[in-house]
Amino acid sequence: MKKIAVLTSGGDAPGMNAAIRSVVRKALFEGLEVSGVFNGYQGLIEGKIEQFQLGSVGDIIQRGGTILRSARCPEFMTEDGRAKAMEQIKLHAIEGLVVIGGDGSFKGANELVKLGVPCACVPATIDNDITGTEFTIGFDTALNTVVDVIDKIRDTATSHERSFIVEVMGRDAGDLALWAGLGGGAESIILPEKPFNVDAIVNRLKSSTSRGKKHSIIVLAEGMMSATQLAEILKKEAGIETRVSILGHMQRGGSPSARDRVIASQYGARAVETLLSGKKSSAVGMRNHKVVDYNLEEVFTKREKLDLSLVDLAETLSI
Amino acid sequence: MKKIAVLTSGGDAPGMNAAIRSVVRKALFEGLEVSGVFNGYQGLIEGKIEQFQLGSVGDIIQRGGTILRSARCPEFMTEDGRAKAMEQIKLHAIEGLVVIGGDGSFKGANELVKLGVPCACVPATIDNDITGTEFTIGFDTALNTVVDVIDKIRDTATSHERSFIVEVMGRDAGDLALWAGLGGGAESIILPEKPFNVDAIVNRLKSSTSRGKKHSIIVLAEGMMSATQLAEILKKEAGIETRVSILGHMQRGGSPSARDRVIASQYGARAVETLLSGKKSSAVGMRNHKVVDYNLEEVFTKREKLDLSLVDLAETLSI
Amino acid sequence: MKKIAVLTSGGDAPGMNAAIRSVVRKALFEGLEVSGVFNGYQGLIEGKIEQFQLGSVGDIIQRGGTILRSARCPEFMTEDGRAKAMEQIKLHAIEGLVVIGGDGSFKGANELVKLGVPCACVPATIDNDITGTEFTIGFDTALNTVVDVIDKIRDTATSHERSFIVEVMGRDAGDLALWAGLGGGAESIILPEKPFNVDAIVNRLKSSTSRGKKHSIIVLAEGMMSATQLAEILKKEAGIETRVSILGHMQRGGSPSARDRVIASQYGARAVETLLSGKKSSAVGMRNHKVVDYNLEEVFTKREKLDLSLVDLAETLSI
Amino acid sequence: MKKIAVLTSGGDAPGMNAAIRSVVRKALFEGLEVSGVFNGYQGLIEGKIEQFQLGSVGDIIQRGGTILRSARCPEFMTEDGRAKAMEQIKLHAIEGLVVIGGDGSFKGANELVKLGVPCACVPATIDNDITGTEFTIGFDTALNTVVDVIDKIRDTATSHERSFIVEVMGRDAGDLALWAGLGGGAESIILPEKPFNVDAIVNRLKSSTSRGKKHSIIVLAEGMMSATQLAEILKKEAGIETRVSILGHMQRGGSPSARDRVIASQYGARAVETLLSGKKSSAVGMRNHKVVDYNLEEVFTKREKLDLSLVDLAETLSI
Repeated sequence: MKKIAVLTSGGDAPGMNAAIRSVVRKALFEGLEVSGVFNGYQGLIEGKIEQFQLGSVGDIIQRGGTILRSARCPEFMTEDGRAKAMEQIKLHAIEGLVVIGGDGSFKGANELVKLGVPCACVPATIDNDITGTEFTIGFDTALNTVVDVIDKIRDTATSHERSFIVEVMGRDAGDLALWAGLGGGAESIILPEKPFNVDAIVNRLKSSTSRGKKHSIIVLAEGMMSATQLAEILKKEAGIETRVSILGHMQRGGSPSARDRVIASQYGARAVETLLSGKKSSAVGMRNHKVVDYNLEEVFTKREKLDLSLVDLAETLSI
Repeated sequence: MKKIAVLTSGGDAPGMNAAIRSVVRKALFEGLEVSGVFNGYQGLIEGKIEQFQLGSVGDIIQRGGTILRSARCPEFMTEDGRAKAMEQIKLHAIEGLVVIGGDGSFKGANELVKLGVPCACVPATIDNDITGTEFTIGFDTALNTVVDVIDKIRDTATSHERSFIVEVMGRDAGDLALWAGLGGGAESIILPEKPFNVDAIVNRLKSSTSRGKKHSIIVLAEGMMSATQLAEILKKEAGIETRVSILGHMQRGGSPSARDRVIASQYGARAVETLLSGKKSSAVGMRNHKVVDYNLEEVFTKREKLDLSLVDLAETLSI
Repeated sequence: MKKIAVLTSGGDAPGMNAAIRSVVRKALFEGLEVSGVFNGYQGLIEGKIEQFQLGSVGDIIQRGGTILRSARCPEFMTEDGRAKAMEQIKLHAIEGLVVIGGDGSFKGANELVKLGVPCACVPATIDNDITGTEFTIGFDTALNTVVDVIDKIRDTATSHERSFIVEVMGRDAGDLALWAGLGGGAESIILPEKPFNVDAIVNRLKSSTSRGKKHSIIVLAEGMMSATQLAEILKKEAGIETRVSILGHMQRGGSPSARDRVIASQYGARAVETLLSGKKSSAVGMRNHKVVDYNLEEVFTKREKLDLSLVDLAETLSI
Repeated sequence: MKKIAVLTSGGDAPGMNAAIRSVVRKALFEGLEVSGVFNGYQGLIEGKIEQFQLGSVGDIIQRGGTILRSARCPEFMTEDGRAKAMEQIKLHAIEGLVVIGGDGSFKGANELVKLGVPCACVPATIDNDITGTEFTIGFDTALNTVVDVIDKIRDTATSHERSFIVEVMGRDAGDLALWAGLGGGAESIILPEKPFNVDAIVNRLKSSTSRGKKHSIIVLAEGMMSATQLAEILKKEAGIETRVSILGHMQRGGSPSARDRVIASQYGARAVETLLSGKKSSAVGMRNHKVVDYNLEEVFTKREKLDLSLVDLAETLSI
């Protein structure tokens, strides 16, 4: 193997740049050439490919977003699109590809594997929803962002007897809402993985108010409903007034946390090692607190259920 | 004068605690007794009044919110309510009152002045909308909070060609949106003080996109319309997709910035000096970068127009 | 078991308050009474013991330091001191104790175990140097603090061709220096666990300068030598000028990171469960990314060697 | 005037990039060409000059340091060096220069003025020590950095009865130490502008300890002595143990505060206007809370004395 390439795809996540830096420098350290592909699979089709040096990834470890940018690419879903991508891969003599992104991005990699391109996939998404790894890059940063917001809201909430709803990202996965709710000391956490029970929420709100608690914070994963919908339900069903904060895309930005930089550095280097070892189709990740690589197929199986005991813990501690 | 009291009222603002600390310690330093009134005017009516010592305000300079809490108080709007407050004031032998809050709170103080209670008002609101002072306590912190959010959104915006709307607080005053838009490098800033022109915004979005700009951020003061409404307008009128972040109450929380702590310390001490000097009805503030006090009546006159040259500057710099 | 108590001891660590909150609320949830002991073992001797309610630990999850405070206690090292502590334990009918701290604190717990008091120990130290657990409370926060400082120094370093030494805490354990160096993209990391080689450091500095690298950052664990000493060595041996930052106690403070709050919540609750299950002498911690408890004796055995492959990774990536 | 250039010089300060952006975009907006000079006056001599476009300063408003870099330049102190610089200025047809930096940098500008190059100087230094302006770019950010450190130290200080010394930058100017001490609630502030009185400091430490205060923080401007020296004095003279934090260059880094971005934007644009208006030798700044420009000569006169009433206020409030 003489040359590999790296791309980022899908929703961006803090720490992607740290992973790119790790892939590029590890590759150069191992005597490989390495190229950056801009704009994800779209750039692969269009040949937006640039040879990288040590300095190409200088001073990026601390930056949010991705210097390689990202884009949706419906064209890559077509056989024709992928054929164009393969032409570029041959033209640039790329013998292995590191794909940094979420499961949609990994499906793209899987298509390239079928066409004979060895791929190593690095999980990076604030949703933490990739099968086979305990942590994805970006989750820890997003978690700190949300908890910081909850802290700010608690400041103002303690001055006025009010209930607040904080809507966080997470269409199908409640990891972010769950950890943020626990870390933020929220009274209620509403997740896609758990049946929604308006009575339970109302009861918690009322009992905490009756105990003299000065604030009530509900963390809501967007996958369940919108904060505005929940506010209307609470008003209609229980006469409870709430204020709404919809965090939106700020959750995807910001300088990556120390931990996200460390795992991004570990994952990136491991992806290069995996390609060098001759594996054709793999994902890297963390299991039992150790960096591992595993067959990419596994990513497409069902994810282990979210540890709902953490929900119980959060509720126990926020009484 | 032997004894004064201090209360916070209205929406809370970061730095209120630093102001309370300053009032209490300055008063004690000057040989006065000083009491804290809890829950604003409501607490004054109910006699939630507590004698404070040096230690009562220890380790609060860095805290968001207000240890004295705040509350709306419709009862104080009535003659009867105010009579009850006067009873408590006499009962506790309070000879002067420091009111920390916004203009609603200052109107309450004005009623007490009419009943013979000397009041010194300290402006604290993230809206920065008090007539007669260049800065209110809390504005600088809220500004940094919003700019930090814009930075995070810019990270993710550069990876995807998208337009973002960030809705910030400010019903009648666009100060926060204006400064945040300028500090955050926003493409467009929409303020209550400026006619809304959908064509101008669309043109700026389109021209920046055509120049290859990778992101577009619109900062919107809530007083103009909601972010959701604006998003619908942009979609209907120009086919432009935008993402929405509604920051909500997080803007009122957080540890106060260094500057807010400094001016809170200055204002609080000045309020005590103002009472000691025998003034019956005053507000403190900043003019020409100097701490001043002035007649409370002035607060209720019309505020000088927002410096819209800053809007022009923001637009010039974000081309 | 009807009543337990909780204390913090040794150097403070961010997240201790989150752990206290978890112990208290979990205990109350389980129907126990729970007391807080102030000032560590000294307070146990002096009977500074207070019954806690749900509200006693309200709004502390986000606070640095420890509301129970901490203190050295030479008296507890004596038989006489421990006898006094036992009197208080009996007087307050305490049937189990949760000790939050580092290994020095755990030795104290071990003495109480010998006297018949069931103890559950919760590891909290920014050094991450407790045998038997992957993470201690406070490490993640301190890590983010140090990485944030490195980011700031990098800003200024890129403007001037300079080498910087950042001295971080860690007398015997290099975990903090290692992770911070990796996360901060440092050129060199100097740890107690690794032989110090001045030539290697000088060579890295020179080669990175010769490659046109605009800054060089050396992270130094205080256990090896002081930053000032290292600066003198580099000047004398290689004529290299460096600037020094000694972070000191700021590393122990600050609002805990989301992750530290989550593990503090988990550990605290687990400690209560461990006592309730009848275990007499245990520590809680994280193994293979799962919360566990284990025999306290194990803490006093030698810690597994630091994973020096991370040092290699850091050096590979900062070429 | 058809073309101007911009350079940064001296110690870097957060917000320099925001000022560069403002100069470049305002110049382009006004129909001028604009070049960036790299490495300060050294780059001017060596012709490290690059024509800038709108995109050259994209996404830098939030970055610490300076994209133009900075360097000391002894050669520019010589007539020969300046002659080389003049050659480059002619070669690139530069008709006006914006210099962003501190007073050393402004002296360089003054030399160019003598040689016929119109210069507009923008004050940027964390020391806030430029005659004629209330605020320099970078001061507000550094202030927040120092206050954040003091907050962290206070967390750990409250757990242990200890005195801490925080050494901050400021060789001749105590502004940073003064504001940080006031904002951080420090017990003592030691400044170059104020006679050092070890007895007064010891008395404050002892009296606050005797009042049961749990922590004592001394903020020391490096211009007076080193923190280590002070620690030795306090130990020798009064037997008081202190811990030392030397913040060093971290004070110069970090993303600029909102306020620093706003004034950097204002100053940069004003500098361009000043050149366009035909002024040959000016500095921009803030007076009475308004952006002004004034004759450069004024910068080299003695600065108005620091407002030591703030020291009194700090001491009154930290009793």
